[in-house]
Amino acid sequence: MNIQIVSAHPDPNSLTNALRDVAVEQLRADGHIVRITDLYAVNWKSEVDREDFSALPPSQRLRVPAASGEAFASGTLTEDVKLAQERLLEADALILAFPLWWFSMPAILKGWIDRVYAYGFAYGVGEHSDTRWGDRYGEGRLAGKRAMLLVTVGGWASHYGPRGINGPMEDLLFPIQHGVLFYPGYDVLPPFVVYRADRMDETGFEVTSEDLRERMRNVFNETPIPFRQQNAGDYVIPAMELRPEAVPVHLTGFAAHRASE
Amino acid sequence: MNIQIVSAHPDPNSLTNALRDVAVEQLRADGHIVRITDLYAVNWKSEVDREDFSALPPSQRLRVPAASGEAFASGTLTEDVKLAQERLLEADALILAFPLWWFSMPAILKGWIDRVYAYGFAYGVGEHSDTRWGDRYGEGRLAGKRAMLLVTVGGWASHYGPRGINGPMEDLLFPIQHGVLFYPGYDVLPPFVVYRADRMDETGFEVTSEDLRERMRNVFNETPIPFRQQNAGDYVIPAMELRPEAVPVHLTGFAAHRASE
Repeated sequence: MNIQIVSAHPDPNSLTNALRDVAVEQLRADGHIVRITDLYAVNWKSEVDREDFSALPPSQRLRVPAASGEAFASGTLTEDVKLAQERLLEADALILAFPLWWFSMPAILKGWIDRVYAYGFAYGVGEHSDTRWGDRYGEGRLAGKRAMLLVTVGGWASHYGPRGINGPMEDLLFPIQHGVLFYPGYDVLPPFVVYRADRMDETGFEVTSEDLRERMRNVFNETPIPFRQQNAGDYVIPAMELRPEAVPVHLTGFAAHRASE
Repeated sequence: MNIQIVSAHPDPNSLTNALRDVAVEQLRADGHIVRITDLYAVNWKSEVDREDFSALPPSQRLRVPAASGEAFASGTLTEDVKLAQERLLEADALILAFPLWWFSMPAILKGWIDRVYAYGFAYGVGEHSDTRWGDRYGEGRLAGKRAMLLVTVGGWASHYGPRGINGPMEDLLFPIQHGVLFYPGYDVLPPFVVYRADRMDETGFEVTSEDLRERMRNVFNETPIPFRQQNAGDYVIPAMELRPEAVPVHLTGFAAHRASE
């Protein structure tokens, strides 16, 4: 299969990139074709601005959804964005590898999402009716593909546990896993998270690498996180709220959007 | 009082910036001193990289916490970052104004956090002992100041409600309000969130502006979100998990970190 890895650490010798390379090695050993986009190495432009939309008349306000939709439809997005979109369409799986900075992804990776995820490509796809609210959350242009996060974290695991002070890791990652990956259609695999990344010694690296290799060997077999599909009956349209028949009314928050809850 | 506003929309005529200016006008009318940092206007650099740490020997790995801590301590952070830090120290309140892109802030604002929030400035502050785990989550260099988000959102409010498909807005904002603002000490005010931003007409803008003016008139009187202080007894040190005596054991997730829960 074809796998796209996007990584976002400024140091080529970082733990994030070392683990990325462990993943690549295993995937290639298993016969997959792997493409790496190292956002720092390609000097990725992080900011959405007018330069992204050369067809937008200077007199016209920059409304990002409209401008990106028109540029996507007319093929006038920038070359870096068009290439990234092509690679996402070609790949059967996407892995995002990054250090957790301030409880989210580094700016350069957020900027990759902000720019590559054009209207008409990753959102604003599909028809709206009484029974469908566009192709999103389990449907969309990237449906049928798999995605996974590889995250290195400075802090302790317990600080990110169910009652840990930072908030549970699965909730901190929900805006990415559900909002960025499941939204345009990806099946999202459980994340691979490494804690106390700055303190890892060689033994720790070997153990972690073997865990990661095992995950990579099963990347096309593993069961995805059971996020609820938008148009499969669990949500009222157009309010897009969970139906009482689907999820008991006392359940709220991120967890209610997983079918196992 | 002294108020710092940081805004992050690429169009000077956007709703985000129009609302920012409504806030500025009211705050100035009330006698406050307001400084605006428009990240697009100043061409803010979003990416943390080696250029941020000129004192780091080329042969040395870039470990961001260590490098930023050394640069902060030795006064060798870049001028844009040092100026931003000075302004945060001078201000009594901080307002971040931005459009919600992919359930988080635009990359340029994330890059402002990533770069300005150096080790020793916003984290890595204070002593660790049996009774304290550094000055964070309610303590820290920015303690005693207030902060607030002004967020424009394309989607519908119900989609961001307690059972809305995107997840509740207060949970989507938790990594920012708790993880970015409360962490270095800010008292965090409830966010000002505008939905269906792309569809707002003049009447809607007037109503919204008046709501915002009212919020600005009370910015130093309003009750902050009651996030739990780290070192006030609710958490076990060093595991940093909620004590059963503080919060019943069946409560997990973001909400458990608000004292009202």
